[in-house]
Amino acid sequence: MSVSPTQDSSLANAVRALAMDAVQQAKSGHPGAPMGMADIAEALWTRHLRHNPADPAWPNRDRFVLSNGHGSMLIYALLHLSGYDLPIEELRNFRQLHSRTPGHPEVGVTPGVETTTGPLGQGVSNAVGMALAEALLAKEFNQDGHAIVDHFTYAFVGDGCLMEGISHEACSLAGTLKLSKLIVFYDDNGISIDGEVKDWFADDTPKRFESYGWNVIRNVDGHNVAAVDQAIEQAKAWAGEGRGPTLICCRTVIGKGAPNAAGTEKVHGAPLGDDEIAATRAAIDWPHAPFEIPDHIYLRWDGRIKGKLWQSEWENQFDAYAKAHPELAAEFTRRMKGELPAEFAEQATAFIKATAERAETVASRKASQFVITAFAPLLPEMLGGSADLTGSNFTDWKGVAPVRATNAGVQFGRHINYGVREFGMAAIMNGVALHGGYLPFGGTFLTFSDYSRNAIRMAALMKQRVVHVFTHDSIGLGEDGPTHQSVEHAASLRLIPNLHVWRPCDTTETAVAWSESVSRPSSIGMNVNNGGPSALLLSRQNLPFVERDDTTIQAISRGGYVLRDADNFKAIIIATGSEVALALQAQQQLAEKGIPVRVVSMPCTNVFDEQSAEWKRSVLPEGAPRVAVEAGVTAGWYKYVGLNGAVVGLDSYGESAPGGVLFKHFGLTAERVAEVVEQVL
Amino acid sequence: MSVSPTQDSSLANAVRALAMDAVQQAKSGHPGAPMGMADIAEALWTRHLRHNPADPAWPNRDRFVLSNGHGSMLIYALLHLSGYDLPIEELRNFRQLHSRTPGHPEVGVTPGVETTTGPLGQGVSNAVGMALAEALLAKEFNQDGHAIVDHFTYAFVGDGCLMEGISHEACSLAGTLKLSKLIVFYDDNGISIDGEVKDWFADDTPKRFESYGWNVIRNVDGHNVAAVDQAIEQAKAWAGEGRGPTLICCRTVIGKGAPNAAGTEKVHGAPLGDDEIAATRAAIDWPHAPFEIPDHIYLRWDGRIKGKLWQSEWENQFDAYAKAHPELAAEFTRRMKGELPAEFAEQATAFIKATAERAETVASRKASQFVITAFAPLLPEMLGGSADLTGSNFTDWKGVAPVRATNAGVQFGRHINYGVREFGMAAIMNGVALHGGYLPFGGTFLTFSDYSRNAIRMAALMKQRVVHVFTHDSIGLGEDGPTHQSVEHAASLRLIPNLHVWRPCDTTETAVAWSESVSRPSSIGMNVNNGGPSALLLSRQNLPFVERDDTTIQAISRGGYVLRDADNFKAIIIATGSEVALALQAQQQLAEKGIPVRVVSMPCTNVFDEQSAEWKRSVLPEGAPRVAVEAGVTAGWYKYVGLNGAVVGLDSYGESAPGGVLFKHFGLTAERVAEVVEQVL
Repeated sequence: MSVSPTQDSSLANAVRALAMDAVQQAKSGHPGAPMGMADIAEALWTRHLRHNPADPAWPNRDRFVLSNGHGSMLIYALLHLSGYDLPIEELRNFRQLHSRTPGHPEVGVTPGVETTTGPLGQGVSNAVGMALAEALLAKEFNQDGHAIVDHFTYAFVGDGCLMEGISHEACSLAGTLKLSKLIVFYDDNGISIDGEVKDWFADDTPKRFESYGWNVIRNVDGHNVAAVDQAIEQAKAWAGEGRGPTLICCRTVIGKGAPNAAGTEKVHGAPLGDDEIAATRAAIDWPHAPFEIPDHIYLRWDGRIKGKLWQSEWENQFDAYAKAHPELAAEFTRRMKGELPAEFAEQATAFIKATAERAETVASRKASQFVITAFAPLLPEMLGGSADLTGSNFTDWKGVAPVRATNAGVQFGRHINYGVREFGMAAIMNGVALHGGYLPFGGTFLTFSDYSRNAIRMAALMKQRVVHVFTHDSIGLGEDGPTHQSVEHAASLRLIPNLHVWRPCDTTETAVAWSESVSRPSSIGMNVNNGGPSALLLSRQNLPFVERDDTTIQAISRGGYVLRDADNFKAIIIATGSEVALALQAQQQLAEKGIPVRVVSMPCTNVFDEQSAEWKRSVLPEGAPRVAVEAGVTAGWYKYVGLNGAVVGLDSYGESAPGGVLFKHFGLTAERVAEVVEQVL
Repeated sequence: MSVSPTQDSSLANAVRALAMDAVQQAKSGHPGAPMGMADIAEALWTRHLRHNPADPAWPNRDRFVLSNGHGSMLIYALLHLSGYDLPIEELRNFRQLHSRTPGHPEVGVTPGVETTTGPLGQGVSNAVGMALAEALLAKEFNQDGHAIVDHFTYAFVGDGCLMEGISHEACSLAGTLKLSKLIVFYDDNGISIDGEVKDWFADDTPKRFESYGWNVIRNVDGHNVAAVDQAIEQAKAWAGEGRGPTLICCRTVIGKGAPNAAGTEKVHGAPLGDDEIAATRAAIDWPHAPFEIPDHIYLRWDGRIKGKLWQSEWENQFDAYAKAHPELAAEFTRRMKGELPAEFAEQATAFIKATAERAETVASRKASQFVITAFAPLLPEMLGGSADLTGSNFTDWKGVAPVRATNAGVQFGRHINYGVREFGMAAIMNGVALHGGYLPFGGTFLTFSDYSRNAIRMAALMKQRVVHVFTHDSIGLGEDGPTHQSVEHAASLRLIPNLHVWRPCDTTETAVAWSESVSRPSSIGMNVNNGGPSALLLSRQNLPFVERDDTTIQAISRGGYVLRDADNFKAIIIATGSEVALALQAQQQLAEKGIPVRVVSMPCTNVFDEQSAEWKRSVLPEGAPRVAVEAGVTAGWYKYVGLNGAVVGLDSYGESAPGGVLFKHFGLTAERVAEVVEQVL
């Protein structure tokens, strides 16, 4: 593969030099992908990407995702060269503590980084979510003559991303939904960590993507900037015709420029070493010292002037839009900031109160649907969906339109049939949240949170407001058996830092759980704050309604609170979700024996843990022994009951039988809870 | 779609009737898939499948996997009708406690069920593992004129399996490795739970599989037994030519036979109801009462005579093989039973002793490679691999040949480059273990155990001996940053019932962890026992060697033991893996202050939990307060330290910086451990 003779490589070589020098300085990192994709990046970033380095939060910027996140020096080089607030000192400090140039790109740490990547396949799935958000926002907000939402989403992917299963899920859905403004560049360098991929990855990738309904541009010379430029032109033209997403397959040489290491796995994930770096400097004719870039090269990379122009053009457009459609404009502005409507808090409180008054005994998945139905009109940003379990998860609501592909682009709707794609759904939701404008939520069975687990973690790490509706949360689901029955899932989700896991016991707690979840701050771009995802763990079976006074209702949002007290209680029973009813029955049985017991409901241990020491002490004072009850593994509860308490739970897999039979079979009964309380006394 | 006029549908209708009646009786289940796939099943099971209902463990039987496991009544009907030990009473008891007919098929519960399915996409991935095991065993054991390993692996998949990302991972690898004896039937009925799939799953599936290098037979009428039969003949012929796996795409009607519900999502996951069942009986001309099958139909389904013949033919072949190659035959027999060589236990002990004597300070991932290198010649069943991190996980050993596709079928090897396919790798390993003959192990970074989590759970549920090598197990990996740094993973893997999670602190513990992991019993077919998977959590960074006497070395296998005692100790420090060194340093610092402290190493909490109360008390006697130290979330440790102890850990995400810097930054230092011990005293 030869660089075309007319091409001036100095722009791309600035990227190569920064990448190899920063990796060398850090003694750690991945020079191969940045060096191999430098020419593609030049084509995209200097000729197409509409962004404004001075304002990484401009709502209508093109989104750029580096799905092969190990190539982080590529995006750091691009951001630095384009004029983002990422000075050269940060590049010198690559991969050092509290630099803005961590090992993998992290949203909120580096201006211009749109999503955190590294776990392969998820970046491109985030990009699908961004393109989906753009398409829906355009349908929702654009008006005749006012295309205020109109941008592309670009992603770079490597072989690793394309081997990962999640790339199948997300790209298949992107094709089905015809997300035409998604343009993905495949860095087809034939090398992964273990060596030449042909022995473990022999897919005909263009054909695969055609099978998803994508446009594919094959055999582009990824080192010929003009060829890449032309491919992008073609992809944008197809986008204009609504022909679905485009994959541009670029043949590249990994580590291009390094005379000895290029084209081999050696250049993937380790510094080139001083000798090879010197040889590369000679080979690419880059005489400058490390981290020194000549002014004329800076000048040609600089995106600030164009960016300012683009943004001010758009701002003029938006002003005109605001004049013509003031309410829509205000709503768009609110939504892109991720703020809830001013009146929502009050409305949510009223709904919770009304729920408590209705005193309904239903499954908590049904209670969740009541909340969704009530909140959806109040929060037009709510964008639901399910991984092909809509009628089981109850994530839809009456009259909601589904999102569908049409010849005229995506048909607007607020419910997404994600198909049987749990991981893809979770990563797409992350992309939707990162884009801004929507508050995504989606459902599957709790056990299949295993499939999506790393995307849930990524939402927590990225502080994204995403709500996971996980129904069928225990052996209570019954006959589907142990493959579907969660045993360890509640406990193990609670371990993910910054994820709020709610397991409500009735309609009122479900309403509070939802209200708290949607009220977590959203975290967009550099506006890092205390946002984060929530998971609602909901029952298949009915849960009896529990009466509470107003003070007790208010206490639910503390994550753990005294549900039913007893004078001079001798013990405390702590329970969650479907087991709260057992705790209350056990309390009564014990009371009849003259043993007063307090019952604590703990729908969200994560939120309870964040409360003041005073609150925690008031709920769980020292002295009285404690028994925790949950239809799941016991290990996590010793944090609350200690070595002198006990846990009634289930440390083995479930069985296939009706739910009621199973609760008895596994000893999850009020009688047993009462017995265990007597034992610990 | 019309049934061909010459076709006698009564065989398939027996399956339809059993499925609809059993689901109705259970008031729960999925009639749609069994009714829709009944004709395909008839073609495969009565005309091709070589199995022996009287001996479900016959090593050379064809394997059959129902990847769309919710259609469990299909396989139960087939097993019952073919003559397996599954009497009609069991079908009447569908989905009831301790029946052999649980909601989803479970290996070890029902004779003839080869793998537990239900979590979509994993069954077909197990089938890939079975076909891989068959291909490798054939290369390893077959000799000129003695093809003792020579069978097909068949799998049924639905739309759900094909939407799941794992189907991409496993099928892409199956195509690359040209697993020709894998034949998959796609139940293309156009319906999933949410309705007609076209709006969320518009893939050109034949084209997709062609892109993987599969043979695809398109547009087979799935209700025409002769057409399906012919397609199978074609697939088998291609298999004989080594042309790679085959996908047979069968157009079907979900719930075929039910006059009103067929072809809609209504028939997918709920009983048909009395009226529709009556209407179906009339429509398919099935006048028999529920669970009554006419003798002439039993007779035509019965596979026992053919099965006995096939097996005895094979046994004759095997006898001849045993005469010609007695050692190979003995080895094959041992391997298919899943027994370790008689001398292994002693050899392992000797290796552990030698390891202790070598006293090397290396990373535990490197220590793991020492063990693999030592054990691989002793255990020829060890079949390693990595999800494209071979050089980081150190799962290979000197001289090991890789598994590769060739024109003459798979090239034998004992190391598999799985590609960047963590979930696929785990499910394929499960299939290899289920097939028998190999002891699979595979590596990735610990954080990416998230990707494979449900397959790890499935191995634990199925009691399969699979070893997961998870390296880079904490912030100790350094610069790659929080996306790659495990924080919650050790704790959350420990919660999976029947998984043994080892986090060794040095070479000796690593050797014991490996020895214990490979020595867990294997569980093949109905030989259910206490087998199960193990996960080894290994460091990237060097861990100092710890001296131990023989008694202490023997105690490692207890999961938790006194590593360094102190007279009249005032406190106990519990640590795992890389933090054991901190505990030992803290012990010394405290000793210098006159505070004697015991150090407990707890490489495997799961195994420690299984010890006698006496052992546990001897390691953790009451009285002395305890401090646990682990570079991860703290919640799990309260089970061992109680409310009066403390945990030194990390309840937030890591950062990108050199590992040593991070340990200090997050307060994971000997000084802090010593401080915390003083605080709890």
